[in-house]
Amino acid sequence: MERPRHQGMAKNTYMRWRLPLVCLLWEVAMIVLFGVFVRFGPEADAHWEEEKRELNLTSDMENDFYFRYPSFQDVHVMIFVGFGFLMTFLKRYGFGAVGFNFLLAAFGIQWALLMQGWFHSFKNGKILIGVENLINADFCVGSVCIAFGAILGKTSPIQLLVMTLFQVTLFSVNEYILLNLLHVKDAGGSMTIHTFGAYFGLTVTRILYRPNLEQSKDKQGSVYHSDLFAMIGTLYLWMYWPSFNSAISEHGDAQHRSAINTYCSLAACVLTTMAFSSMLQKKGKLDMVHIQNATLAGGVAVGTSAEMMLTPYGSLIVGSISGIVSTVGYVYFTPFLESRLHIQDTCGIHNLHAMPGLIGGIVGAITAAAATEDVYGKEGFIKAFDFTGVYQTRTPSIQGGFQAAGIVVSLLMAFVGGAIVGGILKLPIWGDPAAENCFEDEVYWEVPEDEESDVYHMHNPDKPASP
Amino acid sequence: MERPRHQGMAKNTYMRWRLPLVCLLWEVAMIVLFGVFVRFGPEADAHWEEEKRELNLTSDMENDFYFRYPSFQDVHVMIFVGFGFLMTFLKRYGFGAVGFNFLLAAFGIQWALLMQGWFHSFKNGKILIGVENLINADFCVGSVCIAFGAILGKTSPIQLLVMTLFQVTLFSVNEYILLNLLHVKDAGGSMTIHTFGAYFGLTVTRILYRPNLEQSKDKQGSVYHSDLFAMIGTLYLWMYWPSFNSAISEHGDAQHRSAINTYCSLAACVLTTMAFSSMLQKKGKLDMVHIQNATLAGGVAVGTSAEMMLTPYGSLIVGSISGIVSTVGYVYFTPFLESRLHIQDTCGIHNLHAMPGLIGGIVGAITAAAATEDVYGKEGFIKAFDFTGVYQTRTPSIQGGFQAAGIVVSLLMAFVGGAIVGGILKLPIWGDPAAENCFEDEVYWEVPEDEESDVYHMHNPDKPASP
Amino acid sequence: MERPRHQGMAKNTYMRWRLPLVCLLWEVAMIVLFGVFVRFGPEADAHWEEEKRELNLTSDMENDFYFRYPSFQDVHVMIFVGFGFLMTFLKRYGFGAVGFNFLLAAFGIQWALLMQGWFHSFKNGKILIGVENLINADFCVGSVCIAFGAILGKTSPIQLLVMTLFQVTLFSVNEYILLNLLHVKDAGGSMTIHTFGAYFGLTVTRILYRPNLEQSKDKQGSVYHSDLFAMIGTLYLWMYWPSFNSAISEHGDAQHRSAINTYCSLAACVLTTMAFSSMLQKKGKLDMVHIQNATLAGGVAVGTSAEMMLTPYGSLIVGSISGIVSTVGYVYFTPFLESRLHIQDTCGIHNLHAMPGLIGGIVGAITAAAATEDVYGKEGFIKAFDFTGVYQTRTPSIQGGFQAAGIVVSLLMAFVGGAIVGGILKLPIWGDPAAENCFEDEVYWEVPEDEESDVYHMHNPDKPASP
Repeated sequence: MERPRHQGMAKNTYMRWRLPLVCLLWEVAMIVLFGVFVRFGPEADAHWEEEKRELNLTSDMENDFYFRYPSFQDVHVMIFVGFGFLMTFLKRYGFGAVGFNFLLAAFGIQWALLMQGWFHSFKNGKILIGVENLINADFCVGSVCIAFGAILGKTSPIQLLVMTLFQVTLFSVNEYILLNLLHVKDAGGSMTIHTFGAYFGLTVTRILYRPNLEQSKDKQGSVYHSDLFAMIGTLYLWMYWPSFNSAISEHGDAQHRSAINTYCSLAACVLTTMAFSSMLQKKGKLDMVHIQNATLAGGVAVGTSAEMMLTPYGSLIVGSISGIVSTVGYVYFTPFLESRLHIQDTCGIHNLHAMPGLIGGIVGAITAAAATEDVYGKEGFIKAFDFTGVYQTRTPSIQGGFQAAGIVVSLLMAFVGGAIVGGILKLPIWGDPAAENCFEDEVYWEVPEDEESDVYHMHNPDKPASP
Repeated sequence: MERPRHQGMAKNTYMRWRLPLVCLLWEVAMIVLFGVFVRFGPEADAHWEEEKRELNLTSDMENDFYFRYPSFQDVHVMIFVGFGFLMTFLKRYGFGAVGFNFLLAAFGIQWALLMQGWFHSFKNGKILIGVENLINADFCVGSVCIAFGAILGKTSPIQLLVMTLFQVTLFSVNEYILLNLLHVKDAGGSMTIHTFGAYFGLTVTRILYRPNLEQSKDKQGSVYHSDLFAMIGTLYLWMYWPSFNSAISEHGDAQHRSAINTYCSLAACVLTTMAFSSMLQKKGKLDMVHIQNATLAGGVAVGTSAEMMLTPYGSLIVGSISGIVSTVGYVYFTPFLESRLHIQDTCGIHNLHAMPGLIGGIVGAITAAAATEDVYGKEGFIKAFDFTGVYQTRTPSIQGGFQAAGIVVSLLMAFVGGAIVGGILKLPIWGDPAAENCFEDEVYWEVPEDEESDVYHMHNPDKPASP
Repeated sequence: MERPRHQGMAKNTYMRWRLPLVCLLWEVAMIVLFGVFVRFGPEADAHWEEEKRELNLTSDMENDFYFRYPSFQDVHVMIFVGFGFLMTFLKRYGFGAVGFNFLLAAFGIQWALLMQGWFHSFKNGKILIGVENLINADFCVGSVCIAFGAILGKTSPIQLLVMTLFQVTLFSVNEYILLNLLHVKDAGGSMTIHTFGAYFGLTVTRILYRPNLEQSKDKQGSVYHSDLFAMIGTLYLWMYWPSFNSAISEHGDAQHRSAINTYCSLAACVLTTMAFSSMLQKKGKLDMVHIQNATLAGGVAVGTSAEMMLTPYGSLIVGSISGIVSTVGYVYFTPFLESRLHIQDTCGIHNLHAMPGLIGGIVGAITAAAATEDVYGKEGFIKAFDFTGVYQTRTPSIQGGFQAAGIVVSLLMAFVGGAIVGGILKLPIWGDPAAENCFEDEVYWEVPEDEESDVYHMHNPDKPASP
């Protein structure tokens, strides 16, 4: 079943010692660092009985676990099944899509617990973790899964692990700048996760540009069943996105509101996606690529503003627009990016994450700038934007300005970071596949015999009966 | 890949302008109506801090979000993955099954938020929404997904959108009559969702009767992998049904009880389904059609009574019976309905929703009529049936009578509504497929090349090596 | 499509009367026993309003439903989708994998509610059930699903039902000995579920040894898409395992801690599994069998200790080791067990459940023995190990000893019970398949025509156009 390879271009994709070495080295590093730094936060520590008494809590229900665990599990499903299966649309890259996503996310969450922990949960020399840290680690890794979408099928698992290491690091720095230095709100991560993740990935794939990629063009499409597998990913992302955007919002009304806004935005997005998918094709038929991806843009585009008083109709408007932008992107921008800018974007993350992420950042800035005490109530206003302490005097319009600055910072981090990391990934030591072997599981996976040959064998009348 | 079409029967299935027009028109209408009417309810509004103080609530946990959001997400999965994948069993209609279900549900939930909102959450000229409205919108759309099962593969996406518009409207009226005028209990929707949805769909498919449907008979079956995809839908419906039936029950014991009753009923249903599936076939082999569908009848059949004191053994009995009725229905009733009554029921919703829905309504009426203060406790009795205000003097047996009236009203609404809507859908302007193109994705979808031809191409020794 | 069968070895696999008889008999027995014994627990009973007043509870949130229902649903998904789809990796046994798992689990949870109820929830002659009982029933059935993995493809559905009846019984006895007599902690079931379930299944498959199994060797592998279906199972097990290990832990910090430890262990396990999967194969390619299975060993291996103060880095260490042990097991132990010990272990449960289960038991014993009041706090220490009443004087090291005894008891129960049940299953009356028909759905299922022949038919130019 081995296909002839062009000797001239042959690359060394032999992983036997390199991949285990990287995996084990990094896992050992994680164990050492966790041993030195990571401990249970007060709500997960066995001392919590005492903590409860001190805080005068009468019910175990007040443990953050019960406020956030259901949302955490939904986010968890989005990262591993959502992103993993969304990328199985390629006809011969299902193992790589779901398997490499599994690998990089499992590593990434460990490194993210540390990086984000140092920035946000560091106390007396220890990182104290609880369920919110798990959600944030999943979020951080989400940005890596997004970037993975741009380079899907063209990289080795080692490259992915190296990229994850750097991207998680940069993500955490960018997140710290936005949330702590600029005091920006971004609970659903339009800027920190989507804008940063997507432009980072697009920059990396630009640096890794492959001029001969058309050699594997026959594998860069879907087959009937791979499109159905991808729909599993799409639907889980779509259904659980309200949990994603509300997972780390303030307890109470903010979580509640966030889920409603996201639900509305996503519902509207489906309709405009279907409309434009049909409209932009001569035969007027629907295209699964759009249904699998552009329907999700509505979730990205309310990532920043969902916890604000965006209102249900505001969400419908944002969702509608993002569905249109995303679908138009798949039809016109993706080919343009590839032919003119040499950006080969396997999954079209520019349409699903980059543009909707920018929309999300802008909508967030506008919604923040338009906030009034009348709409939020006096206490709600302060709580929603955390206008306390040194931020006591910040006005909505200034907040809007800082939100906009957050977009710019995220873009800069993505471009500069992506360029550097792309350069590192270009080194010829990571075992990436040759152009004609892209989008093919056989390079890195033991692939079972094909169904068809098996069936043939079952139906072949000449085959002697089994002994 | 285009197959020859009979020119005489050729139908215009070109969607390029019609589908986008309908989608965009309706989304614009939704935005306008949401803008005029829909606002956040008090528990999702930023004013909640003040609300909390007024209501003397000490914990954010008292926000309805935490009582209902996990169930909401389970219901959400049932509507989009459950129903969507359940219908992928057809060999060449997977895109339509999961994609059209996605489209109609995404539109339907928006329209349902408005319709149900006007009836149930209207206050000072505004519809105030919270997580319970999202659940109810999903429920309402569930009845459309059910009806979709009857006409699966035989309609255009525009017909589905038109049907959704009308069915959601009628659903809301029927629900209002039952819950508000008759003061009927139906938390899991045996009557409002299943009985109404199924008989509505059956009436529509009767009106749309296609005498030449045998022309696409070869496509009206499953293949090995499409049956496995369908099992994803089945299992998610089965597993999450306890959440479905308990999602909008009263806080506390009612939600708890509802989940237990449903769990028991469904477990019993699996055993009787397997028994009768094997018993009713000459070779004694199990039939995937039954496993995929009849195993779910137990959830439908306790939809009304699950939150009542049905008791675990009562649930086992109801589940057992419904599994038998449903399986027998697939073997005997469906062919009868098609040949004698000209009801072409693609997914067999008569067996999965209509008959079990009737059982559910009847069991609910009996359970209500049999209620005593002894079994429920004095307070529990009043709380369970909401015997307060003008209903203070209602007795269990009178309640039972009203429950039974609810079944009759639901049936009438379904038959009359279905006949009218069926008539509308019969107009020759909606782009439905010709008889020989039913159950085929190619009519409305861009379908990728087949796996087989691809594999053939990979294994063909005569194929020149790629350049 | 019927393949020639060797008349000499032909077995009677006709299920038409036997399977329905067993299913119906057992369901009737369940109804009678539930009728006599099972009632709603106080938190699910309509009398709860009174209960609340007596217990001075001010909020409905204090109902156990809200502490445990989200975890219950995750566990439910693991049992039915997780185990069911994990076993669909076989190319022609997808229906059996997911369908028989469905059948045995649906029966098993009913019987488990009774068995566990008699031991743990029996009060005044009645078993009082609530959401925790549902979780425990699912757990119990989990051990049967594990054992099913060893005999997958080689048994009739009747054998599975018989095995379930006995295994649930033995599970409950073993669980009672461990939890009540030895006062052992095992919230995630490393001993009660995994060690017991796996060694029970391995003993059964040893007794049912088939010397001629190589006759169906061609069907004992996967195909491309069946491996992707299996990944659905893997990922749901992996993602929801934190819910599994925390589902029945004490409210508050214990549930919280349990989820964190499991999350960490599983993340580490993925990296060492990938490392060893690549390292142990000449070509250095990754093997889907390892990714599908060994990545889960980390969840098994912290089953006992997750709710203890294992600490995040402790979890990483345990997870790393279990991934290595499990992968090495697939490469070296499974072939050895089959060729030397005649243990034919279809899914490799020895690597995924047996060895990691033992590790989990040992880690639990060590963690318990190492517990100090300093680490847990005075109250936390007593609460974590329930050192109250007659156990007031138990020290950590004694607890460690009892934990170790729990492993031994579980092993003994598994070996003795498995031998007896294996003997019963060997009786020639249960309709098991002949050696050459193992791993084939056609024996017990109506299997649809193959996709390939259908496609051929669609593309065949000689085929006359449909009339």
